[in-house]
Amino acid sequence: MNFETILGKVDFLEFLRGKKATFLLSCSVTKTCEIPNISQAGIPGKLYLTPTLDAEFLCTKEVRSLPDIAQTPKGVPTPALITRAIHELNPYSNIEILNLGLEVIPQINYFKIHNFDIKPSESITAGAKIEAMEIFQKGLEFGQNYQTKDEYVILAETIPAGTTTANATAKALGYECDGYFSSSFKNNPSDIKNETIKKALDTIDKNDDIFEKLSKVSDNMIIFNAGFILGSRVNELKVILAGGTQMASVLLVVNSILKSMDGEIDSSNLALCTTKWISKDENSNIKAILEQLDFPINTYASEFDFSLSNHPALKLYDEGEAKEGVGCGAALCYATINGLTKEQITNKIESFLG
Amino acid sequence: MNFETILGKVDFLEFLRGKKATFLLSCSVTKTCEIPNISQAGIPGKLYLTPTLDAEFLCTKEVRSLPDIAQTPKGVPTPALITRAIHELNPYSNIEILNLGLEVIPQINYFKIHNFDIKPSESITAGAKIEAMEIFQKGLEFGQNYQTKDEYVILAETIPAGTTTANATAKALGYECDGYFSSSFKNNPSDIKNETIKKALDTIDKNDDIFEKLSKVSDNMIIFNAGFILGSRVNELKVILAGGTQMASVLLVVNSILKSMDGEIDSSNLALCTTKWISKDENSNIKAILEQLDFPINTYASEFDFSLSNHPALKLYDEGEAKEGVGCGAALCYATINGLTKEQITNKIESFLG
Repeated sequence: MNFETILGKVDFLEFLRGKKATFLLSCSVTKTCEIPNISQAGIPGKLYLTPTLDAEFLCTKEVRSLPDIAQTPKGVPTPALITRAIHELNPYSNIEILNLGLEVIPQINYFKIHNFDIKPSESITAGAKIEAMEIFQKGLEFGQNYQTKDEYVILAETIPAGTTTANATAKALGYECDGYFSSSFKNNPSDIKNETIKKALDTIDKNDDIFEKLSKVSDNMIIFNAGFILGSRVNELKVILAGGTQMASVLLVVNSILKSMDGEIDSSNLALCTTKWISKDENSNIKAILEQLDFPINTYASEFDFSLSNHPALKLYDEGEAKEGVGCGAALCYATINGLTKEQITNKIESFLG
Repeated sequence: MNFETILGKVDFLEFLRGKKATFLLSCSVTKTCEIPNISQAGIPGKLYLTPTLDAEFLCTKEVRSLPDIAQTPKGVPTPALITRAIHELNPYSNIEILNLGLEVIPQINYFKIHNFDIKPSESITAGAKIEAMEIFQKGLEFGQNYQTKDEYVILAETIPAGTTTANATAKALGYECDGYFSSSFKNNPSDIKNETIKKALDTIDKNDDIFEKLSKVSDNMIIFNAGFILGSRVNELKVILAGGTQMASVLLVVNSILKSMDGEIDSSNLALCTTKWISKDENSNIKAILEQLDFPINTYASEFDFSLSNHPALKLYDEGEAKEGVGCGAALCYATINGLTKEQITNKIESFLG
């Protein structure tokens, strides 16, 4: 099991081989997830719980705010299973939770939950009503002050309907997007998504500046982490953005903000790591998104898939029903640079499903 | 291979997943071990050497103060084999020895041996003659001042006949004990033990205070570590008490001392970790001991057993001939939260036996 280099060179990830990582899970809720059928990342009607349950499961292997592990209608289990399996096989030395607007606080002790007084954002169909500048500032400050004993940070996300807000964000900022954005569905519910994005873009006034646009069509995860990425440059913290098109959108926001202030970024200590299900997805194109950045970004995709498994719920991943989330792509890259095998990971994940 | 949560929640141990540990081995001799057949933790007539040999073997994989690894008459090898095997597979970042009254100093270089000017204690049948208050104070000070770069400390013990002194200690302090205390024997030599405990309790005067009682019936390991636990609360050091009913007795002493001075303890950064052989032992009941504490204590037992081994000496563990010691239960829990498998551990231990 290896990883593919999509952009840049192997050196960044190779340098991190064998080094210690802190896993930061950004958890957020956008009420966009209440639009029927917009996402399959969780239990219909209870998608707002998904980030809470993902955090609980990653940390404790237990879902405490609900009796069962979040499953999609077709029974695709949360990618938190993958991220947790790797934590059991070769633990991240630290897991911390970023509460970027949760409905329900995860029931976990000892693990650090960073609170920033951020509320779930509204649906982007009627304006997300995010205090974008304030959220960005909070991310910036957190990034400037964040310290770790570990050699790098894996920055992951869990926010249902996040690919929709990510797509709307990119489009509002003027990036080429058509056909580039991913979905948790195999048959991307493009009509619902496109309709939602269209409604979101309609809320934008042509005179809106970047932050006004973000306030209306984005989500807390993207805005906060754009700040985090910029802020953490002061210490040259090594950060792996753990995700697919949503994390690509974080970088687009960074790019737009820098452009607006004629700023520059040293992106040499940043990378994006995702899954094969994203890199090989025919209905999205993460490379095309990232190539629009004015700075280079090392980008990798794990080669892991469920070809060694016969479990029907897991095979759905290979069929395109789930692709990314809870940093599973970066976790799989981390697994590779720490010597784990595809077999070990497959067996461990299967052991969770019984 | 996982661990079972006996008391509390999984969170404490889950939080420590992937984190660095210092291993502290408390080594002590009570002349109670000279009573024939009271313990099988070592070579008959030379049980006083066991803690010395355990320390040597854990640190160096060599027994220097005697040609062979301490074996019991039936050939049950010391649990130091387990603790050492895990150290080879996923090393503790530091091992330090606490000399709490050794007859023979371990012949090891570089490893820190903390000396406290403590002598082996006398047999409890005629009064152990321990300066209990002084020993407790030494533990308290050591705990207050102890510093580590690691995120937690595994505090283990090796003291032959220690379950007898632990039982006597608990009984002298008025706790319910009948059938709760463990033995290194499968067929617990209850007559010898009970007779010894009875003789010990006979030395107590009804007007004796806690420390006077401890002076007569306890051992240096228990008294010192009760101090260590209380002292180390000032820095909120995360400590895993690595052992079975003996470590439970340390907590009972902490409890009694606190009660006598109307004190309280924040036990949230403490846990006790032991083996399956203890948690499933039908002749003892560690849970019942710990439930008598006035503070909560996270308690875990590794699920490890020797079901993957055919080695007759190791199978004796599964038959109940050895159950705990040299922190092997906590070492096995540490193995789990660092991604080791039952197979790896079994193979490594077998490799020691040839």
